[in-house]
Amino acid sequence: MDIRLNKQNLKGFIGDNDIEGIMPNIEKAHNELEQKTGKGCDFTGWLDLPNKIEDSFLDELAALGEEIRVNSDCIVCVGIGGSYVGIRASLEFLIADQKLPVYYAGQNLSSGHLHYLLEKLQDKRVTVIVISKSGTTAEPALAFRVIKQFMREKYSPEEFKKRIITITDAQKGALRQITDKEGFRSFIIDGNVGGRFSVLTPVGLMPIAAAGVDVKQLIRGARLAQDECSTMDMDKNIAYQYAAARYLLYKQDKVIEVLSTFYQRLSFVEEWWKQLFGESEGKAGKGIFPASLSFTTDLHSMGQLLQEGERNMFETFFLVEKSGIEVVIPQEEEDLDNFNCVAGNDLDWVNKQAYKATAMAHYEGGVPNMSITLPQFDAFTLGQLYYFFEKAVAMTGYLLEVNPFNQPGVEAYKNKMFALLGRK
Amino acid sequence: MDIRLNKQNLKGFIGDNDIEGIMPNIEKAHNELEQKTGKGCDFTGWLDLPNKIEDSFLDELAALGEEIRVNSDCIVCVGIGGSYVGIRASLEFLIADQKLPVYYAGQNLSSGHLHYLLEKLQDKRVTVIVISKSGTTAEPALAFRVIKQFMREKYSPEEFKKRIITITDAQKGALRQITDKEGFRSFIIDGNVGGRFSVLTPVGLMPIAAAGVDVKQLIRGARLAQDECSTMDMDKNIAYQYAAARYLLYKQDKVIEVLSTFYQRLSFVEEWWKQLFGESEGKAGKGIFPASLSFTTDLHSMGQLLQEGERNMFETFFLVEKSGIEVVIPQEEEDLDNFNCVAGNDLDWVNKQAYKATAMAHYEGGVPNMSITLPQFDAFTLGQLYYFFEKAVAMTGYLLEVNPFNQPGVEAYKNKMFALLGRK
Repeated sequence: MDIRLNKQNLKGFIGDNDIEGIMPNIEKAHNELEQKTGKGCDFTGWLDLPNKIEDSFLDELAALGEEIRVNSDCIVCVGIGGSYVGIRASLEFLIADQKLPVYYAGQNLSSGHLHYLLEKLQDKRVTVIVISKSGTTAEPALAFRVIKQFMREKYSPEEFKKRIITITDAQKGALRQITDKEGFRSFIIDGNVGGRFSVLTPVGLMPIAAAGVDVKQLIRGARLAQDECSTMDMDKNIAYQYAAARYLLYKQDKVIEVLSTFYQRLSFVEEWWKQLFGESEGKAGKGIFPASLSFTTDLHSMGQLLQEGERNMFETFFLVEKSGIEVVIPQEEEDLDNFNCVAGNDLDWVNKQAYKATAMAHYEGGVPNMSITLPQFDAFTLGQLYYFFEKAVAMTGYLLEVNPFNQPGVEAYKNKMFALLGRK
Repeated sequence: MDIRLNKQNLKGFIGDNDIEGIMPNIEKAHNELEQKTGKGCDFTGWLDLPNKIEDSFLDELAALGEEIRVNSDCIVCVGIGGSYVGIRASLEFLIADQKLPVYYAGQNLSSGHLHYLLEKLQDKRVTVIVISKSGTTAEPALAFRVIKQFMREKYSPEEFKKRIITITDAQKGALRQITDKEGFRSFIIDGNVGGRFSVLTPVGLMPIAAAGVDVKQLIRGARLAQDECSTMDMDKNIAYQYAAARYLLYKQDKVIEVLSTFYQRLSFVEEWWKQLFGESEGKAGKGIFPASLSFTTDLHSMGQLLQEGERNMFETFFLVEKSGIEVVIPQEEEDLDNFNCVAGNDLDWVNKQAYKATAMAHYEGGVPNMSITLPQFDAFTLGQLYYFFEKAVAMTGYLLEVNPFNQPGVEAYKNKMFALLGRK
């Protein structure tokens, strides 16, 4: 794998002995995962997904993508949670590969958002992708009602039918019924993969293929990670290393993990990570609180608290070796700001020094930290990263003795809301 | 004041007795603030700022704004921390009042961001506003080097001079020197107001006046809040109510405050809030960790953890009564998704039911919560809100027995970074 995990700044917080001490737990969790005998094992379809997906299916997605790019100026993705954040994470990370603008709807209940979106779509050729297992989640269902109306007014019945594609359950649910009734093309959401683990299924793949991303490269990366993160050899398995470190830090009352990236293009991967980790671990009164920051911006807002506040957190830094674009810092005749010392360098070189300084300063201030370094912004890397995080959270979930694959708590507010809405 | 604070869902967590118990501390803090005798009192200039600002100065800002809007297609604001986040918070909140696009630079060390920004500016008439007390903070200083070069190539010496405006120290620092040497117009950063409290000074006012915001209305709102948040009558002072509740929750090991808004236009006010609270409280091993979420989007990512995870957090919901734009949910002939029950309603009505359901469900799940409700998105409301939060954090800082007006910890990484950069 091309992803590196640096654990140097855990020294003094986690020792080899600590890892040794939980090896039996790790081995037990590993076996339960591999043999699919642990908690929630009905929802571990994602585990062997990368090596199961057939290249012919990926070719089919690529061909459909080409068709869409010929007849559309933009795509609207309707979805929320796992049917939103992974798609957006991929497209922001792979912005350079994107050939068609993608807008989002149904990811909130904002009248303003939907109003301005429809305004923007007025004079554009549009393809809509609707993603929902049930079709009865309020946000995407209501947005889809509004967008369906818009598309019906904009297009002939023939075009209307062609320009809406759904990703939903094979047999049941409202969106399946609507799909069959209207004759929309559709892709299947597998029953054994939960929403937050669906980024490498049609949910995460079809929309980005439509936008122009090479999904074969993404899956090639995920396959590599599947192979390398399946070994019980801790020295070789960075997913288990990351999981073990997180678990041990949590046991020392480090109850907040701050994932900080120095690259804006990683911001939505952070959002994806928040759902993956928060929803998998946060149950039965347990769970690390996942927070994300954008550095160096947020060093100038949260930096003081990270350096000297309550010592109840650890940090994971998120880096990219080759950022891709260079901006050279100009030399100035009179060195009034005293920065001629870095003139001639790429601004990203300064960014990387900021990372080194921050990791060191926070560590010395009592915040243990790790870093995850990616080689570059490409689909092959992103595929590895997704699988790495998925495998890691499965491991910490089992170490915490929770079921990392369910989400019983999300029903609570939904039930109350449906009651307020007068919905049966 | 038009802002309402609802504390209903603190019941069972905080009682009248708890408030009574800390009244002596609140009174002591109140007196220290009002008499400017407490910790960090040299930096409490913001306390009486709204009533001190002269209308003639606000007229001057408005006139300069008009001049800029005539000769420019956009504004670039160069700044970070308190010289960035408040400006952006105001402009996103007041998007409907904005008459000129505003771009940001110097808020990170991203080559990509700067590269694409310059590309965008190529064929536009540009005014640059540079905000830095010292002029030696790495991010804005380096961005300003690059942008100065760009502006020098784009414009005649006369235009160059006219199109750059600085906000900096009256006498000292690199940006003051550069300003005097080049003959830029400039505004003064007062010595007795820290960066995170500067949103109602020229730092926060001048750029938004240039973008077209009515800063008189903003200050009028702040004046109202200054009056109402200066009373020791707890029943009438919502800033002290909010502060007392936060302090008491923290004492019960609620170490994370999640500020969740149901309106995207409040997202950057959340960022501003994070700096204000994190930097003011996060010191001496103390401080509530401020996290922000965007609902309902994040209910589908962090909802599970909020409902059933570690019970170490409380929530503050951030609402707006009149959201401004209406999108009516269409009726459908066949009610396949079962949402005809809400057809004919504005989508925002559903959003508000989602809030009620969430507040109730999380409270029942063991997460105490409050809500802050604003009447609408206007400058008068925003001015009140800023002052309310500033006064509240000053109070909690004193209750926590820290100096809420300094930020000694931010030097740690800076010093290490300057060493790595070879800077004297």
